Amino acid sequence: MAVLCKPAIAVPDHIITNEETLELARRLHSDHPQLALACRLIEHTGVRKRHLIQPIDEVLKHPGLDARSATYETESKARVPSVVRRALDQAELEPDQIDLIIYVSCTGFMMPSLASWLVNTMGFRADTRQLPIAQLGCAAGGAAVNRAHDFCTAYPGTNVLIVACEFCSLCYQPTDLGIGSLLSNGLFGDGIAAAVVRGEEGTGMRLERNGTYLIPHTEEWISYAVRSTGFHFQLDKRVPGTMEPLSPALRALAEQHQWNAGKLDFYIIHAGGPRILDDLSRFLDVPPGAFRHSRATLTEYGNIASAVVLDALGRLFDEQSALDGHHGMLAGFGPGIIAEMSLGTWVSPES
Amino acid sequence: MAVLCKPAIAVPDHIITNEETLELARRLHSDHPQLALACRLIEHTGVRKRHLIQPIDEVLKHPGLDARSATYETESKARVPSVVRRALDQAELEPDQIDLIIYVSCTGFMMPSLASWLVNTMGFRADTRQLPIAQLGCAAGGAAVNRAHDFCTAYPGTNVLIVACEFCSLCYQPTDLGIGSLLSNGLFGDGIAAAVVRGEEGTGMRLERNGTYLIPHTEEWISYAVRSTGFHFQLDKRVPGTMEPLSPALRALAEQHQWNAGKLDFYIIHAGGPRILDDLSRFLDVPPGAFRHSRATLTEYGNIASAVVLDALGRLFDEQSALDGHHGMLAGFGPGIIAEMSLGTWVSPES
Repeated sequence: MAVLCKPAIAVPDHIITNEETLELARRLHSDHPQLALACRLIEHTGVRKRHLIQPIDEVLKHPGLDARSATYETESKARVPSVVRRALDQAELEPDQIDLIIYVSCTGFMMPSLASWLVNTMGFRADTRQLPIAQLGCAAGGAAVNRAHDFCTAYPGTNVLIVACEFCSLCYQPTDLGIGSLLSNGLFGDGIAAAVVRGEEGTGMRLERNGTYLIPHTEEWISYAVRSTGFHFQLDKRVPGTMEPLSPALRALAEQHQWNAGKLDFYIIHAGGPRILDDLSRFLDVPPGAFRHSRATLTEYGNIASAVVLDALGRLFDEQSALDGHHGMLAGFGPGIIAEMSLGTWVSPES
Repeated sequence: MAVLCKPAIAVPDHIITNEETLELARRLHSDHPQLALACRLIEHTGVRKRHLIQPIDEVLKHPGLDARSATYETESKARVPSVVRRALDQAELEPDQIDLIIYVSCTGFMMPSLASWLVNTMGFRADTRQLPIAQLGCAAGGAAVNRAHDFCTAYPGTNVLIVACEFCSLCYQPTDLGIGSLLSNGLFGDGIAAAVVRGEEGTGMRLERNGTYLIPHTEEWISYAVRSTGFHFQLDKRVPGTMEPLSPALRALAEQHQWNAGKLDFYIIHAGGPRILDDLSRFLDVPPGAFRHSRATLTEYGNIASAVVLDALGRLFDEQSALDGHHGMLAGFGPGIIAEMSLGTWVSPES
């Protein structure tokens, strides 16, 4: 058994509201032929504010990839340990009880990943496995949960720590002026999440079945161009329509588990954007409120990439609405285009 | 059960001999104060030749990260599928029988990783899991074997494809003039390897136990600086001495398995450099010929990063010396500094 425990979340102090984003778009791109469209798309993201690791004036200056890499390292080392500590506390585990650290981040690149530094500085065992994932983008939160589930299935009683560290503002590219880039500039935010998958006991989502689905021939729809200026996020306009081909995969996974994907008790869905959530609720035929935790993440923080699903799950914990025996689904979406899907049942040590 | 089957290997056509490397070093760095030391280190690598995806004149020109990223994508798409096809044939499996693709590469970065393109172009199922790993460097070959083992343990009967694609020449940095960089310029080569871990049957190494060990507080000894010019490999001079602290971890893992690490029938060891192999054979007290497959990889191809262990394993297969019931160890070493270790027994369907 593997129980996904209560996540810990941290967002940085620098805040930009959606109004400020729109003002900025109008000021920076006053002569852009599609400014009106970009502003309309940003207005409709449902984002109210986003949190950034640096003041917006710093974000807007691209200081070069060397400096951004240094900032990623400094800021992740400054911010990740306290989130990890809280996640461990919430799971009632000490660092030396963790057998695998899955560190996911698509917005900065280090080799070795931060996982090695965490082992060295936080008291994890020297024989803790490390699984860093940089290339699954927003789907990596779901992938981390699924690979943690696999590991606990292979080795019953082991515990896995998941860390998702996303500083999307470090991928802001001032020279990218396509409509997808302008929209992304108003959508993504910074955030850190961590959660433990406990092999025994624990309160949370008992992971029971997971799966991946790739929408055929869409590998160019969400991608990075890796350039001297860093990662350039490339978003195809067909991406918001991908819930139509993905929802059958979610339904099929649930059916394998003798569940109905439209009749679950809780849903933790990657809030890629508003249409992702609107479409998926329609295609799964679930009530509008079913994705309220994901919507709250999008509203409060923007799309914080792989950390979204953990933040949304944290909101479900805070709401205290999940009861023992409730059935739920967690799903991350990202480049591939893939869905990383998980089904589980709410449990507590008393259940 | 999980059997690591016969790997397929490909090295590119452009060859540079060690003599040519030394000539080049003397020509390019004639005024370098440590040229003599660099040449002595390169002479002692044991490398006879290396294979490169481009002629050496092209390698030496750094065309910028944008162009190198494009080359990585073009060359990996051109070269990986045939290696994958051979690995599948050798395991007697079709693409639609693969449940997980682990794609490891530390010398080029794509998001999504090549795994998505492979699914789309080679007939893998849309529900094949994808695990791309970019941040474990030379240890990623061992890590891939270990995560494949875990997956087959969690889901008996599933099959995993491992792909290691390393174009180290795309990380050549002409402005890096430290002694570690000059040595690396004479050590690393390009190569691609693929292998299948079969959940049932198969001839090869039946994976029985795996482990990771991090040498405490060495995370800066092997690292990348991520700069506008790409990945800059940073090698500390203490790295060649790391077999002393790592060998007790190899011994301990074997003891957990009731084996003696110094008395195994075969060894597949990452050939990071000559001293790695010399020291480890001394600390494990194994005969000089025990690491002959790894030495052959180093001699023929140089250090091809995560692909080394698969190439060395391929040489063990070719030698046809492993017999049913033989006990062996596979170990990759890389940034962290970590060892990814695996123990297994040779099996064939008849055994």
